[in-house]
Amino acid sequence: MTLLGDTLAELTLALLKIPSETGSEGPIAESVLRRMETTTFGPRVLRHGNAVLTLPVADHRPVVALLGHLDTVPARQDGPPRREGNVIVGCGASDMKGALAVMLALAETLDPDSMWAQPMFVFYDREEGPYVENGLGPLLERFPETFARIRLGICMEPTSNAVEIGCLGTLHAHLTFHGQRCHSARPWEGKNAIQEAGSLLVDLAQRQPVDVWFGDLLYREVLSATMAFATGTRNVIPDVFALNLNYRFAPGKSLETAYQDVLDFVAGRAEVEFSDPCPSGPACLDNPLLKRFLTLSNVIVQAKQAWTDVARLGVHGIDAINFGPGDGKFAHQRNEQAPVDALEDAYHLLHRFFVEEFIA
Amino acid sequence: MTLLGDTLAELTLALLKIPSETGSEGPIAESVLRRMETTTFGPRVLRHGNAVLTLPVADHRPVVALLGHLDTVPARQDGPPRREGNVIVGCGASDMKGALAVMLALAETLDPDSMWAQPMFVFYDREEGPYVENGLGPLLERFPETFARIRLGICMEPTSNAVEIGCLGTLHAHLTFHGQRCHSARPWEGKNAIQEAGSLLVDLAQRQPVDVWFGDLLYREVLSATMAFATGTRNVIPDVFALNLNYRFAPGKSLETAYQDVLDFVAGRAEVEFSDPCPSGPACLDNPLLKRFLTLSNVIVQAKQAWTDVARLGVHGIDAINFGPGDGKFAHQRNEQAPVDALEDAYHLLHRFFVEEFIA
Repeated sequence: MTLLGDTLAELTLALLKIPSETGSEGPIAESVLRRMETTTFGPRVLRHGNAVLTLPVADHRPVVALLGHLDTVPARQDGPPRREGNVIVGCGASDMKGALAVMLALAETLDPDSMWAQPMFVFYDREEGPYVENGLGPLLERFPETFARIRLGICMEPTSNAVEIGCLGTLHAHLTFHGQRCHSARPWEGKNAIQEAGSLLVDLAQRQPVDVWFGDLLYREVLSATMAFATGTRNVIPDVFALNLNYRFAPGKSLETAYQDVLDFVAGRAEVEFSDPCPSGPACLDNPLLKRFLTLSNVIVQAKQAWTDVARLGVHGIDAINFGPGDGKFAHQRNEQAPVDALEDAYHLLHRFFVEEFIA
Repeated sequence: MTLLGDTLAELTLALLKIPSETGSEGPIAESVLRRMETTTFGPRVLRHGNAVLTLPVADHRPVVALLGHLDTVPARQDGPPRREGNVIVGCGASDMKGALAVMLALAETLDPDSMWAQPMFVFYDREEGPYVENGLGPLLERFPETFARIRLGICMEPTSNAVEIGCLGTLHAHLTFHGQRCHSARPWEGKNAIQEAGSLLVDLAQRQPVDVWFGDLLYREVLSATMAFATGTRNVIPDVFALNLNYRFAPGKSLETAYQDVLDFVAGRAEVEFSDPCPSGPACLDNPLLKRFLTLSNVIVQAKQAWTDVARLGVHGIDAINFGPGDGKFAHQRNEQAPVDALEDAYHLLHRFFVEEFIA
């Protein structure tokens, strides 16, 4: 194990030891603020709510933002944060405290005056909650000119150090099937709300993913029933059956079109109420800084088959990608883990990106 | 209003004022016992648990049992028991404290020595609960010879003074559809348990009632989904979907055949677990005492499209019918009510049945 690896491991463990479930990011924000204040970026760091960010200086270098969320999903009885050989284990290790450690290490080692680009560090809160409560929103509102200077945002979501382009949009449709209550010995006196849902469920099961290509990148639009509930008692024909549909849709599709897709599918078979719409994130394949990063790093490039804040930045006209050391398959799972090797790799790739002169 | 009507109304109100939700029948049993002890049947009345019954004397007259359950479903904020003009209002008025009042009035006015048949009064507990906890079961076990003497049982369930023959059997089938959890952005990595249920729900919706005729009587066998639940969260493809089916089946069909009907319908599409089987009640159309009652009373005769303790008596080889003054459409409803006229009619029909010499 290298000295850098040990440093990143220790940093990650220190962050894991500060619980930061969504909505409780105060202590970790304070800790990150203190740590950032000791770096050469210290004079330009500030805290806004439970977010911590650095403001770039006013020069003509392009600004590249590194964005990491401070919060985690609720812990899942993982035992204490710990190192087990080459992996760090703890709630949020992969999503995304390992990435936060990489950001802190970069802030501590990059020299602001010897780079062709300016890094901007954004640590924010409430990413794992609803779209409208996400902590990146208030920063975009409070610092619009600063964010407008960003030429590339790097959302350090777990991608195993691949570059994942764009992101799927997502929304929920609450379907209500209506019936009429009656005694279950005489069902013809009413209408069975559960049974009303049959044909729609058959259509859902038969619906194939809709493949949308951007160059070599494949996004798959999918619509799924995720929750179902019929209240009542077992000798009564139910008058209400509720079904939650989750729709994931590709970059380039507006929320309005996504709503219409769902309505077309439901085709009047149920009452529909939409909630928590999150737009898709644009696939910024032509961004010159992205091209530079890909040339230098030679990492795998793939479509992001999930939602991330790449979409929120896209809404504000900011090109962004997903790139981070965590492994998505451990995210939100028990005994979440991050390999120390991946933390090192992410550090090296980003460090090189910021300091190396560009050779076309 | 007649004196008899006032008496029956007062008796019903007195019973309504003693709450007797299933499992809490002690006070009403005590009250009925005290009242029965004052009648000419007093020497032969006894209490067994929360049931009260009279034992017939050992002579050769046929025994006709009048059976009424003391319990009610939970009250539904009905306000206090009261008389409103020609109706008595209160939880259990229809199902079946009005009928209990008729039974008490008969016990107080019938002369045991001047009847061609012997009435046997059975007031019992826990009818509104599960089949296996029903209070009639322990009586059948404790007094087998006495019950074996019954030539006709009259379950005084609410029938609006029609004779309702037999009864449907009922059982519940808990269906479990199994899937495999995964993130809802990549549903192809798992299997959606809710969507697995689609074809079965379509088949349920298309299934027509199966009509079973006994002479002019029509029973309709019906199978319905009554409860549905998929646990989980809205961004996860669910691995379990649970569905409760209620099956109502006609007289003459065994429980084993009923189970097989459900299994044939499900056809392996879900895991099936049966619960609370209640057999159907035989249609004893050839019973001579029933024929006599119908000739004398000239009431409407129809099939019982629901379950009652006629089935339990049938299991013990005892012919029984449903006949009572309550109105089924008010049963288990808020502001349950019973018309005083119907109480009087029931009293007169039964009184005449017991005392009048038979003219073929």
